[in-house]
Amino acid sequence: MSSSRFDLVIINGVVATAADCGSYCIGIKDGKIAALAQAFSPEEIGDAEVLDAEGAYVTPGGIDAHVHIAQDLTTGPGVASGATCADDFDTGSRSAVAGGTTTMVAFAMQTKEDPSLLQVVEDYHKRASDTGCWIDWSYHIIISRVDKDTIRPELDALVKDWGITSLKCFTTYDALRLSDHDLMWLMLEARRLGVTTMMHAESGDIIAFLTEKLEERGMTAPSFHGQSRLPIAEGEATTRAIVLAELVQTPVLFVHVSAASAADAIRAAQSRGLPIFAETCPQYLHLTHADLERFHGPLCFENSKMLCSPPPGLNDDDQEHLWTGLRNGTFTIYSSDHCPFSFKYVPNGCPGIETRLPLLFNYGLMTGRITPEKFVELTSTGAAKLYGMYPKKGALLPGLSDADITVWYPEGKLKPFKLTNEHLHHDVDYTPYEGMEFANWPRYTILRGKIMWKEGKLLGKAGDGLYMKRGESQLAKSPVGMKKDPRRVPLWLHDE
Amino acid sequence: MSSSRFDLVIINGVVATAADCGSYCIGIKDGKIAALAQAFSPEEIGDAEVLDAEGAYVTPGGIDAHVHIAQDLTTGPGVASGATCADDFDTGSRSAVAGGTTTMVAFAMQTKEDPSLLQVVEDYHKRASDTGCWIDWSYHIIISRVDKDTIRPELDALVKDWGITSLKCFTTYDALRLSDHDLMWLMLEARRLGVTTMMHAESGDIIAFLTEKLEERGMTAPSFHGQSRLPIAEGEATTRAIVLAELVQTPVLFVHVSAASAADAIRAAQSRGLPIFAETCPQYLHLTHADLERFHGPLCFENSKMLCSPPPGLNDDDQEHLWTGLRNGTFTIYSSDHCPFSFKYVPNGCPGIETRLPLLFNYGLMTGRITPEKFVELTSTGAAKLYGMYPKKGALLPGLSDADITVWYPEGKLKPFKLTNEHLHHDVDYTPYEGMEFANWPRYTILRGKIMWKEGKLLGKAGDGLYMKRGESQLAKSPVGMKKDPRRVPLWLHDE
Amino acid sequence: MSSSRFDLVIINGVVATAADCGSYCIGIKDGKIAALAQAFSPEEIGDAEVLDAEGAYVTPGGIDAHVHIAQDLTTGPGVASGATCADDFDTGSRSAVAGGTTTMVAFAMQTKEDPSLLQVVEDYHKRASDTGCWIDWSYHIIISRVDKDTIRPELDALVKDWGITSLKCFTTYDALRLSDHDLMWLMLEARRLGVTTMMHAESGDIIAFLTEKLEERGMTAPSFHGQSRLPIAEGEATTRAIVLAELVQTPVLFVHVSAASAADAIRAAQSRGLPIFAETCPQYLHLTHADLERFHGPLCFENSKMLCSPPPGLNDDDQEHLWTGLRNGTFTIYSSDHCPFSFKYVPNGCPGIETRLPLLFNYGLMTGRITPEKFVELTSTGAAKLYGMYPKKGALLPGLSDADITVWYPEGKLKPFKLTNEHLHHDVDYTPYEGMEFANWPRYTILRGKIMWKEGKLLGKAGDGLYMKRGESQLAKSPVGMKKDPRRVPLWLHDE
Amino acid sequence: MSSSRFDLVIINGVVATAADCGSYCIGIKDGKIAALAQAFSPEEIGDAEVLDAEGAYVTPGGIDAHVHIAQDLTTGPGVASGATCADDFDTGSRSAVAGGTTTMVAFAMQTKEDPSLLQVVEDYHKRASDTGCWIDWSYHIIISRVDKDTIRPELDALVKDWGITSLKCFTTYDALRLSDHDLMWLMLEARRLGVTTMMHAESGDIIAFLTEKLEERGMTAPSFHGQSRLPIAEGEATTRAIVLAELVQTPVLFVHVSAASAADAIRAAQSRGLPIFAETCPQYLHLTHADLERFHGPLCFENSKMLCSPPPGLNDDDQEHLWTGLRNGTFTIYSSDHCPFSFKYVPNGCPGIETRLPLLFNYGLMTGRITPEKFVELTSTGAAKLYGMYPKKGALLPGLSDADITVWYPEGKLKPFKLTNEHLHHDVDYTPYEGMEFANWPRYTILRGKIMWKEGKLLGKAGDGLYMKRGESQLAKSPVGMKKDPRRVPLWLHDE
Repeated sequence: MSSSRFDLVIINGVVATAADCGSYCIGIKDGKIAALAQAFSPEEIGDAEVLDAEGAYVTPGGIDAHVHIAQDLTTGPGVASGATCADDFDTGSRSAVAGGTTTMVAFAMQTKEDPSLLQVVEDYHKRASDTGCWIDWSYHIIISRVDKDTIRPELDALVKDWGITSLKCFTTYDALRLSDHDLMWLMLEARRLGVTTMMHAESGDIIAFLTEKLEERGMTAPSFHGQSRLPIAEGEATTRAIVLAELVQTPVLFVHVSAASAADAIRAAQSRGLPIFAETCPQYLHLTHADLERFHGPLCFENSKMLCSPPPGLNDDDQEHLWTGLRNGTFTIYSSDHCPFSFKYVPNGCPGIETRLPLLFNYGLMTGRITPEKFVELTSTGAAKLYGMYPKKGALLPGLSDADITVWYPEGKLKPFKLTNEHLHHDVDYTPYEGMEFANWPRYTILRGKIMWKEGKLLGKAGDGLYMKRGESQLAKSPVGMKKDPRRVPLWLHDE
Repeated sequence: MSSSRFDLVIINGVVATAADCGSYCIGIKDGKIAALAQAFSPEEIGDAEVLDAEGAYVTPGGIDAHVHIAQDLTTGPGVASGATCADDFDTGSRSAVAGGTTTMVAFAMQTKEDPSLLQVVEDYHKRASDTGCWIDWSYHIIISRVDKDTIRPELDALVKDWGITSLKCFTTYDALRLSDHDLMWLMLEARRLGVTTMMHAESGDIIAFLTEKLEERGMTAPSFHGQSRLPIAEGEATTRAIVLAELVQTPVLFVHVSAASAADAIRAAQSRGLPIFAETCPQYLHLTHADLERFHGPLCFENSKMLCSPPPGLNDDDQEHLWTGLRNGTFTIYSSDHCPFSFKYVPNGCPGIETRLPLLFNYGLMTGRITPEKFVELTSTGAAKLYGMYPKKGALLPGLSDADITVWYPEGKLKPFKLTNEHLHHDVDYTPYEGMEFANWPRYTILRGKIMWKEGKLLGKAGDGLYMKRGESQLAKSPVGMKKDPRRVPLWLHDE
Repeated sequence: MSSSRFDLVIINGVVATAADCGSYCIGIKDGKIAALAQAFSPEEIGDAEVLDAEGAYVTPGGIDAHVHIAQDLTTGPGVASGATCADDFDTGSRSAVAGGTTTMVAFAMQTKEDPSLLQVVEDYHKRASDTGCWIDWSYHIIISRVDKDTIRPELDALVKDWGITSLKCFTTYDALRLSDHDLMWLMLEARRLGVTTMMHAESGDIIAFLTEKLEERGMTAPSFHGQSRLPIAEGEATTRAIVLAELVQTPVLFVHVSAASAADAIRAAQSRGLPIFAETCPQYLHLTHADLERFHGPLCFENSKMLCSPPPGLNDDDQEHLWTGLRNGTFTIYSSDHCPFSFKYVPNGCPGIETRLPLLFNYGLMTGRITPEKFVELTSTGAAKLYGMYPKKGALLPGLSDADITVWYPEGKLKPFKLTNEHLHHDVDYTPYEGMEFANWPRYTILRGKIMWKEGKLLGKAGDGLYMKRGESQLAKSPVGMKKDPRRVPLWLHDE
Repeated sequence: MSSSRFDLVIINGVVATAADCGSYCIGIKDGKIAALAQAFSPEEIGDAEVLDAEGAYVTPGGIDAHVHIAQDLTTGPGVASGATCADDFDTGSRSAVAGGTTTMVAFAMQTKEDPSLLQVVEDYHKRASDTGCWIDWSYHIIISRVDKDTIRPELDALVKDWGITSLKCFTTYDALRLSDHDLMWLMLEARRLGVTTMMHAESGDIIAFLTEKLEERGMTAPSFHGQSRLPIAEGEATTRAIVLAELVQTPVLFVHVSAASAADAIRAAQSRGLPIFAETCPQYLHLTHADLERFHGPLCFENSKMLCSPPPGLNDDDQEHLWTGLRNGTFTIYSSDHCPFSFKYVPNGCPGIETRLPLLFNYGLMTGRITPEKFVELTSTGAAKLYGMYPKKGALLPGLSDADITVWYPEGKLKPFKLTNEHLHHDVDYTPYEGMEFANWPRYTILRGKIMWKEGKLLGKAGDGLYMKRGESQLAKSPVGMKKDPRRVPLWLHDE
């Protein structure tokens, strides 16, 4: 590294953070933000590399807090036996960096067959180590069995040794779902540890019932996927899980919220002051049920390209509901739920780690639907704060934040183009956003001061990313001093 | 029977029905209402018995649509092993008639060990036949296991052969609870058969979790019963079951609603036009958590006299919420949930078949909280219509209705008294309403034209009551022509 | 009159009242219901006229509690100068009787120019006396100026001498609207007198603002009427007036509710237990904005045939919302708001006194959307109870109720026909329901025992109706013992 | 000014902005933020003054967007004739600076007697110029008459010449209130100009009615003030004004929200995506009705020290509701509504410009009820963005933001003390917060790089503040692309 004041200087950018936006310069040294200034003098710049943003937006590097990568899908949820995850840590993170994302949190998944959480994490970590990763990363732990005698020390070790401070539960998928009783038991543990609970909320029973009835009628084509997972199934499970969370008095983040009824239930909880958080994903802002049928009619296999769970909403109204939620603070984070399957496996899940930022930039920020600050909050700062990565990640604080930065194109510089899967860097053979138009895209992606992606070219390598232990959530704390309704909260449970 | 125009004539009564109230005469012949008139001429009266109501209210005989009698409680829910139901069909119905009730619907309960619903009903019917019954009666069937291959013909037979047109499900009690999936499966059957679904809605998982946590803390005295079954547990299960009912598009009656949050969820469903109905019971209008502690402090065994599930509300606000619901139509029926246990068995449930009508009359009608018409709707007509007994029961229609009538005391005639258990005719050794004041009480109870109870004396006998086959519900129909939201209702499921 | 037991006997009818429905016979004597019985013996019938209903529905005569008749429209709201009300008491009530209605309540309207309420009533009564009336009638008083010094004794006299126990206020129309302050002042008077307040709730300011803006744009054709009175204007004024009513703690009936937002506000108030009532009208169940344009496009004068205030809803959803409200009890009464203008005057208001009952019978009862009992409650009993006419009107109680009865056609007896204005008996030159199909219609209309309308022929005369003094409302009482929120209710105001 | 890189350097601070918080250094030059860095080298520091924050919080200078100062109160709202505003621009801003506030927006108030808005502003500006001001300032314009012909050019000039980009309306006070019609007219102008509408929402009619009734009962002591302005009056007017804003599709900021029902209405509008904003004030977070009576009983004149409009809430629940709203984003700004009256005038309004920041710091940030970021958003950034002062004010952006900074005491450095009015620097003879305990207070207040307040001593002077023209709001924009409900929004009005 250079001995001068900075290694890299970004000038002429419109720098946006989660609260602020304005034109100033960024000085980077040893992989960290070193200084922010109106201008740097030639002496200060010295022999540092100078990146001229040419008036474009400069944002903290994207954090994708919800990605499925290198998972052993034969035991995964809702997946045809023998399916394999198309992206490993190499290709998945390569795709991320090409889309402006510099940090990701992947899922170490315990199945009901796995007795030990630590073993699950160690096995999964081996996969990451084997290939290396282009960006910094961490893990959430998916818990699918609650062995009350053994789980506590394991959870302690996950927090202490691995910095895994978030756990994810399911209310659906036979291989993963927990009973309401076990959910509460686990939430109480999460509360003890100060760990954030993530919830996949869809009613497993409703889905099973509808699936049965669809099968009785021979309605099994991919286009009926949405009918087996009606929005009401998500609304019900979300409403229920909020009750459990209120009772236990612990924060919960609802992942991939798609249904208006679920968003409404979350908003209502927030209005009452509960620490309930929500995530949504690009597929719910850009796809609808109609997309499940758009290729060659309802029976066509091609439709399964749009298949994910929960499925996209019925129509524009559902999308609009989520956009409103992005704007008014219902949602704290916006993730990809990147779920890369080779198309032949009838995927349940969409790839999206690379398109995530560009979609929100083009269709949110550029259209005026959200402000630049909100863009940063949703794509980076929210996740950093919620998952204990802040201010190392998600911010541009001198001396404190890693120099993870996305520099966009100045207006008019990039010729608008229609996206095809060939543009992308994942190992998946399709994108659900094929054909959508983009007028901007990350021009540079910088990881801890290193330019990894420049004007369409990958400059880094799989080993550039580092595993990151995470700390406590900055957001997910129980409200202080709030009156609790004894009709809803067992006060004696929270004396301790 | 007499050959004259009438056998019995009631004069000078203020006759109330579910919609009307006014002073006129009732002529009874052969156990039926024969005529209503301003007055009857001496020729018309002939040698008929004349009952002078002296200006008192005359109401259709009470229908208690929720009573537990002669149940084999060793296998029942939440009950200490070896407990026996204190009332059989004789003593229970004797108590009913002394409280102005002329019809009851008891529960034939399948446990998870019982393979056949029909066998359950036959066994239970034998108990009724063995002792006989003072009033007319019928059965609901409690279903606790869903054998999909065998249950359909059994349900058909219950409807056709036994006139059992209502089934009850539980979301709690390990011995009884059904999964959401089975609930939907059963609701769909109910829909096919035009049968009303009754729901005991409390979250079994929340209760189990709280019980576990209370036990860990040694908080096991009866006074903690309410803490193990917080209102939120009822609110959650009610909200959830409404979703299932909406999805299946079938009517559901929520039994013994106690929680404000449950009542609110029901009201919201009714506001959206769904055929959701509700019942509440005297214990929720007159007792509170405080009553669980009113005898000798929190650890006293005496407190268990007030024990029932769901438990009474926390305070006056909860009661007031239910009174509002009685007034504004949220509730269709008001039943006793008579659950007669000898006190030594630590009962879960209160006796109340005899006090039901007097409580609502004294504390509702006489205070002006409800009108006489609403009194009749809640105590009689609502149940008759909801459970397929109308207009034979619940009305005073000439030629159509049984002459089941309760005649009250004229104002000022009965000296106000404080209730003690000695006043009552059940076989239970306590009443939760001990010490409450009453200024009115049924003066005469008439069953199909026969005076069974007169000014404190029982005149009939156990064999006077008849088993009644019930028909289709008059109330519980899906709304016609209502638009359905495809986010909530699987339209394809309801094409048929 | 005959000296036999009855003057008229109706046999073979399916008699519906607000709570009950069944087949029995009705005996009528001296204009009153004398007896109801399974059957009458030949001796009882004697020489009474026997009307064989042939299995058809028999309902209490319709009560139309909202009709404009013989009003001096030059000073009326929103009306072209010089317009005259097409129907006087003769022709309006003639039309009523031909549509099964036997009682009406018309509006004695004070304008801001009228100093005395009593004078207004006397003048208006003279018009009724001059022509006579075919059916029984009474008046509501419209109050448009609040002279605090003189109004109290006048209100006292209206109640005592005229039996006028309902007053109507407007929140719109410059000639009529009262300030919120005056509304509260008047509501407090209504509370003192036990009088029901009727509210025309549309925001006068919103309407004026929108009208101004429409005029600036030259959008003045009748088809823009709906745009000047958007549903939000009704929703706002309804929400506001409910606040005023809660503060004063007095019952309010909202007339001609058309907007879903207004219905929702009313429902929410009822859910909280407030004595808030609502009326809707046929035009809001059968017309939409589209009807304002259905003749010859948006600029056609013909469209004004559908003009009324508030205007009909935008589309089917709005109608469906009101049907749901009819079913679930949000609405207590269903009136015509008969507003008869010769077409040349660009009417604001629709004629409908004759079509009111047939529309609800054909499109509500016969389609299964509402029960026969609900039909009776909405068309007759609700108004009788709300406006102090019960049980003389709105019921069939022996000795108490006038023999006002509508007998319908047995199923299949009346050949379905398309309505034209020629079928009707008002003095208006159009009907907004032209072309709608009807399969039933009142076959006989009986007023106090006299058959006034028989199978398409008028048998009575204008003088057959009697003026009726009304008493206190049976419905509109403040809830007893309800807790009041000191954030909303000035408790000190209600100590008295 | 110094020729070195910086004039002033702040080190060892925990710098909080609206989204971020961390420890770094701030370099200031020529009154602006020049650079932010992990550390500055001795060369960089040169001869700049170094302020060691010793680990304390460093926040952007407070912006008080709601202050009444030097107003001619004889014509003001609800004020005893002859009252004079105790603080002029000198003393009011002196008090501000001592409480950490560096910018204020005061009200230029048009009364119904003032024909010209510009004249009002000029006259008011003369007062500010006469005394000078310690901090930077701007004006809102209060509009109390809508002269449609003359107001447009005046509004244009206010925006263009004065940078007054916010107007305030009242729904109460006879001297100020506008009709709903005029409110909409003005909102449409505000929309045309991109100006933010501020709304004092209390129903003037409800207040007048209640006042009348209180006076009739002789309930005129200051302690009854709360009874004349029940929370329902604020809830009603807020609900109504939201309807008007939705109709006009323009942003509205509700000032000094005190009632839970008002906060709920605002939250509901935000949930639907409307650009509705809210402000609350310290008096609503710390006082209740009980404070109106806390001195010597209900009739004591001393109570009027707590008098303001709207009055504080009834009890802790109301306060808690507002704290929840601060946390969940319902409120965008937190202002003082500084309303300085000498006590002898029976004030309507509380002084609070100096205590505003310390109260929220001590009772919000230090207790953990809100985060440091939320503290900054509420006290500074929110107002800067809402009122067009951003990023000059409300941020710490290099080269863009004025160096307006508040440095707090490090934990434990300041001895906790009980506040008395002697501590304060306003010209008012009382504080409603007398006796409250404080453990922190602004240690340094820095205005554009100049230390104005240092450890209890005033260092600046009245002339140090500058008048500031404001630009367009960053927040208050209509949502882009949101679907509008034609039942609520006149789409044709928004085509333009």
